[in-house]
Amino acid sequence: MNTIARHLIAEYYRCDLEIIDDLDAIRRHMLAATAVIGATVVGEAFHKFDPQGVSGTVVIAESHLSIHTWPESGYVAVDIFTCGGLDPRPGFLHLKEALGAGDARLQEIVRGLPDDLEARDRTLLPDDVQIITEVGQLV
Amino acid sequence: MNTIARHLIAEYYRCDLEIIDDLDAIRRHMLAATAVIGATVVGEAFHKFDPQGVSGTVVIAESHLSIHTWPESGYVAVDIFTCGGLDPRPGFLHLKEALGAGDARLQEIVRGLPDDLEARDRTLLPDDVQIITEVGQLV
Repeated sequence: MNTIARHLIAEYYRCDLEIIDDLDAIRRHMLAATAVIGATVVGEAFHKFDPQGVSGTVVIAESHLSIHTWPESGYVAVDIFTCGGLDPRPGFLHLKEALGAGDARLQEIVRGLPDDLEARDRTLLPDDVQIITEVGQLV
Repeated sequence: MNTIARHLIAEYYRCDLEIIDDLDAIRRHMLAATAVIGATVVGEAFHKFDPQGVSGTVVIAESHLSIHTWPESGYVAVDIFTCGGLDPRPGFLHLKEALGAGDARLQEIVRGLPDDLEARDRTLLPDDVQIITEVGQLV
């Protein structure tokens, strides 16, 4: 298997404050995002902070997803890292709706061995940084 | 608390093939990297793949660390995501040695709400993408 992986870096703004401070909801939405992209869960870890905020990760056979929420600011940071040819973008869209985000920002970077990247005419950051699209255009 | 977070994106090349296929070693080195940056562990999930490879995440009070290994290629991808003012770079250096990496590549991006970023004259990707340094210069 080659080492090429896609890594989505997602920022969600003006999210639903109740949802993003709810451990069970966050876990459920992250597992749903995992299912949406067709990934296989092999581990997970979620934590609720006092007084507020949730962090969590889902380890998948194809790498991982992570989430950190700042309910006091309505802000959520998500990463979706997939190898094996999985498209992570449907997971981004699923979470935008599930978190009640008023706005979002999405970027994709490429990870992997230089030889694998070169063979596919891809390069690591910063050359390969892409703003895939404004969210409105993607939906 | 502001939403500013530092996110290190690290690639390790020519790693020790035995170490990076050893679940216990990877878990131990990731927890040590967490300790080196002064972070507090609140959860973890590690998985060994068949026939080879290890993936894992450590959820910390200050966000998370993740690792994915490709023993067949000697390649390892790591993320160290820290909020609360923690410097993630000592964790990167710790793992470079622990994984027996012959070479590595490190980049830092900044995450957070636009207002918080602007107040500190920082911007999100791609403007803020930085190649911090060649590894040899950092040590």
